[in-house]
Amino acid sequence: MNTFGLIFRLTSFGESHGGAIGGVIDGCPAGILLDTDFIQSELNRRRPGQSDLTTSRKEPDEVKFLSGIYEGKTTGTPVGFIVHNTNQHSSDYEDLKNVFRPSHADYTYQSKYGVREHRGGGRSSARESISRVVGGAIAKLALKKIGISVVAYTSQVGTIQLNRPYSELNFNNIEKTPVRCPDLDRANQMIELIQRVKSEGDTIGGVISCVCKGIPPGLGEPVFGKLHAALGSAMLSINAAKGFDYGMGFAEIHKKGSETNDLFYRKANGKIGTKTNHSGGIQGGISNGEDIYFRVAFKPVATLLKKQITVNNLGEEFILEVKGRHDPCVLPRAVPIVEAMAAMTILDYYLINDGKLHPFIDKQSKNNC
Amino acid sequence: MNTFGLIFRLTSFGESHGGAIGGVIDGCPAGILLDTDFIQSELNRRRPGQSDLTTSRKEPDEVKFLSGIYEGKTTGTPVGFIVHNTNQHSSDYEDLKNVFRPSHADYTYQSKYGVREHRGGGRSSARESISRVVGGAIAKLALKKIGISVVAYTSQVGTIQLNRPYSELNFNNIEKTPVRCPDLDRANQMIELIQRVKSEGDTIGGVISCVCKGIPPGLGEPVFGKLHAALGSAMLSINAAKGFDYGMGFAEIHKKGSETNDLFYRKANGKIGTKTNHSGGIQGGISNGEDIYFRVAFKPVATLLKKQITVNNLGEEFILEVKGRHDPCVLPRAVPIVEAMAAMTILDYYLINDGKLHPFIDKQSKNNC
Amino acid sequence: MNTFGLIFRLTSFGESHGGAIGGVIDGCPAGILLDTDFIQSELNRRRPGQSDLTTSRKEPDEVKFLSGIYEGKTTGTPVGFIVHNTNQHSSDYEDLKNVFRPSHADYTYQSKYGVREHRGGGRSSARESISRVVGGAIAKLALKKIGISVVAYTSQVGTIQLNRPYSELNFNNIEKTPVRCPDLDRANQMIELIQRVKSEGDTIGGVISCVCKGIPPGLGEPVFGKLHAALGSAMLSINAAKGFDYGMGFAEIHKKGSETNDLFYRKANGKIGTKTNHSGGIQGGISNGEDIYFRVAFKPVATLLKKQITVNNLGEEFILEVKGRHDPCVLPRAVPIVEAMAAMTILDYYLINDGKLHPFIDKQSKNNC
Amino acid sequence: MNTFGLIFRLTSFGESHGGAIGGVIDGCPAGILLDTDFIQSELNRRRPGQSDLTTSRKEPDEVKFLSGIYEGKTTGTPVGFIVHNTNQHSSDYEDLKNVFRPSHADYTYQSKYGVREHRGGGRSSARESISRVVGGAIAKLALKKIGISVVAYTSQVGTIQLNRPYSELNFNNIEKTPVRCPDLDRANQMIELIQRVKSEGDTIGGVISCVCKGIPPGLGEPVFGKLHAALGSAMLSINAAKGFDYGMGFAEIHKKGSETNDLFYRKANGKIGTKTNHSGGIQGGISNGEDIYFRVAFKPVATLLKKQITVNNLGEEFILEVKGRHDPCVLPRAVPIVEAMAAMTILDYYLINDGKLHPFIDKQSKNNC
Repeated sequence: MNTFGLIFRLTSFGESHGGAIGGVIDGCPAGILLDTDFIQSELNRRRPGQSDLTTSRKEPDEVKFLSGIYEGKTTGTPVGFIVHNTNQHSSDYEDLKNVFRPSHADYTYQSKYGVREHRGGGRSSARESISRVVGGAIAKLALKKIGISVVAYTSQVGTIQLNRPYSELNFNNIEKTPVRCPDLDRANQMIELIQRVKSEGDTIGGVISCVCKGIPPGLGEPVFGKLHAALGSAMLSINAAKGFDYGMGFAEIHKKGSETNDLFYRKANGKIGTKTNHSGGIQGGISNGEDIYFRVAFKPVATLLKKQITVNNLGEEFILEVKGRHDPCVLPRAVPIVEAMAAMTILDYYLINDGKLHPFIDKQSKNNC
Repeated sequence: MNTFGLIFRLTSFGESHGGAIGGVIDGCPAGILLDTDFIQSELNRRRPGQSDLTTSRKEPDEVKFLSGIYEGKTTGTPVGFIVHNTNQHSSDYEDLKNVFRPSHADYTYQSKYGVREHRGGGRSSARESISRVVGGAIAKLALKKIGISVVAYTSQVGTIQLNRPYSELNFNNIEKTPVRCPDLDRANQMIELIQRVKSEGDTIGGVISCVCKGIPPGLGEPVFGKLHAALGSAMLSINAAKGFDYGMGFAEIHKKGSETNDLFYRKANGKIGTKTNHSGGIQGGISNGEDIYFRVAFKPVATLLKKQITVNNLGEEFILEVKGRHDPCVLPRAVPIVEAMAAMTILDYYLINDGKLHPFIDKQSKNNC
Repeated sequence: MNTFGLIFRLTSFGESHGGAIGGVIDGCPAGILLDTDFIQSELNRRRPGQSDLTTSRKEPDEVKFLSGIYEGKTTGTPVGFIVHNTNQHSSDYEDLKNVFRPSHADYTYQSKYGVREHRGGGRSSARESISRVVGGAIAKLALKKIGISVVAYTSQVGTIQLNRPYSELNFNNIEKTPVRCPDLDRANQMIELIQRVKSEGDTIGGVISCVCKGIPPGLGEPVFGKLHAALGSAMLSINAAKGFDYGMGFAEIHKKGSETNDLFYRKANGKIGTKTNHSGGIQGGISNGEDIYFRVAFKPVATLLKKQITVNNLGEEFILEVKGRHDPCVLPRAVPIVEAMAAMTILDYYLINDGKLHPFIDKQSKNNC
Repeated sequence: MNTFGLIFRLTSFGESHGGAIGGVIDGCPAGILLDTDFIQSELNRRRPGQSDLTTSRKEPDEVKFLSGIYEGKTTGTPVGFIVHNTNQHSSDYEDLKNVFRPSHADYTYQSKYGVREHRGGGRSSARESISRVVGGAIAKLALKKIGISVVAYTSQVGTIQLNRPYSELNFNNIEKTPVRCPDLDRANQMIELIQRVKSEGDTIGGVISCVCKGIPPGLGEPVFGKLHAALGSAMLSINAAKGFDYGMGFAEIHKKGSETNDLFYRKANGKIGTKTNHSGGIQGGISNGEDIYFRVAFKPVATLLKKQITVNNLGEEFILEVKGRHDPCVLPRAVPIVEAMAAMTILDYYLINDGKLHPFIDKQSKNNC
């Protein structure tokens, strides 16, 4: 399905080499000032060619809005938008028409649909994420009005890990380095590694971390729509994602309950909080008001500039030698995509939850929450 | 939301201390022989009191089917079922009525709904998973008819890890040990660890691994309904789950593309397969016919038999001292739940996909897939 | 699909001759006082055997709630409920096991599922509506808190029509007559007609009208989720329904625009209203604050006490002679079902809409609405 | 919600005076030859200015496809499309910015969203149906491959009714007359009436009938997704629709069961059919293989060329005098829209149903269906 969300819904379309990438955002609250500079700046963070860590393809990726906006604000009706594809080299792909590239989606699309658009990966191209970034940028504008922020950064490339807790990081550094890691020393090591791998014609994966602040308690729909299950699904739907964890996650899963339980206390402002946050801001699938933080693992890009042996659609062996412009590492450009999916998920859950209580329940019964 | 799935849909209800746990399975294919012995045996794998690794509560957890079955087979109409709650000690919870237990869902349910059933965790109780196991057992019966199997096992408890690839494991051993780890040496170490932790009044988490075999190519709905995104959401919706990864996952995310790409070849039977399976049986969100395998991280049980400092609903400090019957480790009983969620997810995606091609596309165009 | 609604969701199960009819209500707001006497009284209005206009079967149809309620109030978690089947004469149906009764769902269920529960119509039995009435009663309790009421009545039986506008009717009369028509003269004519038809072994159809008051402006989700489209779908999903119209409907569709346009004016209380209400309280798919009113056409009951020629599953001719206890007219018992479906639809749309504006839009911009 | 369908899904966007009307079709089967001439011809049937019965606005309404198509065929990935708005006279609407036109959606959109695009009715404009017609045209191309056809025609304008059963009509006549009524005598009377009403500055409503042939038995999802409930919702979602009935409908609802029951018999080809078809091809919410036929009531166009008294957003009285180009009767242009919604509904239900049985049920058990 190419629709994401229940109330705030993004429907996405477009292939790498078709006329355009685009989408429809339905259920967007009315009255959001559509800051198109901000939206374009988010697209620019995703755009290829922004540094020598990414593919050298140049695509302006300018978004055009077609509906749902009046006098600069959203009207509550669906926001249609398109981004034209302008820099496709279809001929690059002519030899690959009947070839199944390793660890790409060529074979599975052919299996599922009996037909596929082979140029640039077709629908499975990373260009599909353009729609996500547009949807996410609008979600961020809405979330900003209610005090919620979402920030992601690269926390691992290959074996180079950023192990410090996010509270010790300076998020203002993220955009200062092309690899989008807020620890500038570690960022330099990552950059060096990516350049080395690139020079070998190889690729490298890693981990993106994300922190969401300002989440009110109460978001999440047990039992199947737990907030972290929705975030996990959103993240795993991003191309190349191989894993998701939140709070203590895989990394601390060996610890004991007495080490990981988050004790409640009354904060200075009178509200209830937790002393630690191994829970990652979510308990029983519902936000508890603490920061939400999670990680997403991304595999190495499947397109190598090395020879690989594969088969074509007749099962015949084929020596694959790709030339052209490709990313050695997906992470720097995936940072805004992770943020976009998180922002849409949280806004959707905010809208699902809003109004649940009022006016059906007595006000005083939620006094201390 | 308490409904899971698009075509094969489980709707679940019930609290720990209410009249019953139950559910409705809608969209179940007609003609499935409802093997009630098998279904009950799956429930027994989840049941408390099955070994000294689990809580000593005795609950028979007998399922009663109320509809959707005629002459022993499903009719395609909704299958309603209930499991009565029989062994609740409500008075155990009287003192906790207004207390927020650390790392439980007490505070978040109160925040969200303004009211909560405090006894036994109410809706957030692990008893909720009974409905999942019933739904999963029926899904397994359907999958068996099309040659698909789903097997899960405990692969990590605390720091004790089972690092061998699943192909070297003997799955027949899984049910031979109460911890459900197929490596019996490692199983004994896990059991010892759980007993030690239990004796300390503490709890411990770990990882469950799962392997799905016999999956045809073509299951998965890009771009937001990728098969692994659906599996991830399903797993993360299980109580205490903190992470999900599949294929190479977090553990091998540091590797290079040349180390992890799965090369295609023509198998002896003429079909196309991959020489390795770092992809975990899914490429571009669609199954490729190889085994699907994934991991789920589970946190330590939040209920400790140790003193903990917390607050009540007025924000007043409260010294929590729990007595009673609790699991020191959730993993042994979570194994059938992981299988159940995987089985329902895969059956649902099978039903979504079935008929996609026929009769709209020429047969020959999918010859080699 | 056996689930109704997006936020307030009823999932229904059960056959005429299975263990129980039941359902799960998910998304019910927390804090609703569950007035079980009221819910049971609604079921009693639907129950067979309540007058000599209905089947003489006696079924107590007592509802039992299994979850989602604490100290008499809803908790926001799913409300599971069952009504046991107690008065089935399965042997009545033994001869009909392989017979397709005219204008029943026997043939179509067999075609769709390849198997069917033949006793009492199985899932297609009118007993299925029990779940609707329970869901609707709870929705009514929630709507009452926000000042919304839903009232239905029989407005046509055979050729006997109640042509007066609803504003001239005394709704207090509805429950004074077994046919549930508020015009007592017309009610007597209807009763006489039903009894005559019954004595002939025949059956008769008609129309139920429904009026919803207190609806705030703004409910409805253009363009496909228009409020009247949702009401229409809800009504047409009731057994035996053949048509739906609202506002001017089929009956006045021949009029000109100058006769049917509803002119706006400022009401005494300063709010904007319409002088007439040919729109039926909905414009562009969204409620405008005026009363919503609509009609539902119901066909004659398909079970006749007359000989009919049909076929069995082998296509062989079969002379059908039904004996037993059947309704000569479905309308009196369908009145509470129409109300139930309307109440659930409106509550669902209220919950979808609630929170749409706040806090994203400036308060003053909706001053006059 | 601006998405229609479960598997075959149309998501629509666009306002009358925005950049474009468009949409995304998701879940379209792969391998459909996209006959763009046919699709454009369907749009031309909907287009304004096609005869003097419609508005004189000239809009080319040329559709441009942006994705989901490869070598002229659908690929199973989402089909994005746009139709640019080219002939808007925004200044026509400047005076109406703050005015609530009678029986339009101005007031309700303002109430719901707190803001609205006033030009040309914004999202509530009839131009929105362009997306429906594109989606419907593609659905028709798919249905044609499986032998299903959908034909609609005008059966009533004002008091002029076409009372003959559809089997006596020559559907080849439909496109021979601008009013799209297959009885040419009656068509002329309708045309005369529309012209008279137009000359008075008034408008007129009526009824469109639709017939679907070639439907296999088994389509429909009881109990809430009955096929006629889905068709009803689809039709009622069309602008200006006030009612829906199928089979015997409101017109024959006064008849007795013995007059309306459809007796089964074995047809010459050995299949089971019904002698009459008061059921309208649907029994128990599931298609029975007979023709499906239904009616949709449309109100008179709300825009009159006569003075009307209304209010503005401050509640002040406003004398509305519309000039410009408007339809005196919506029916001729609504015929292709009715067909489009029917085609999408039936294709969606076909795809939902397909694969339900196989391979879970024994083949022989459905031999005679």
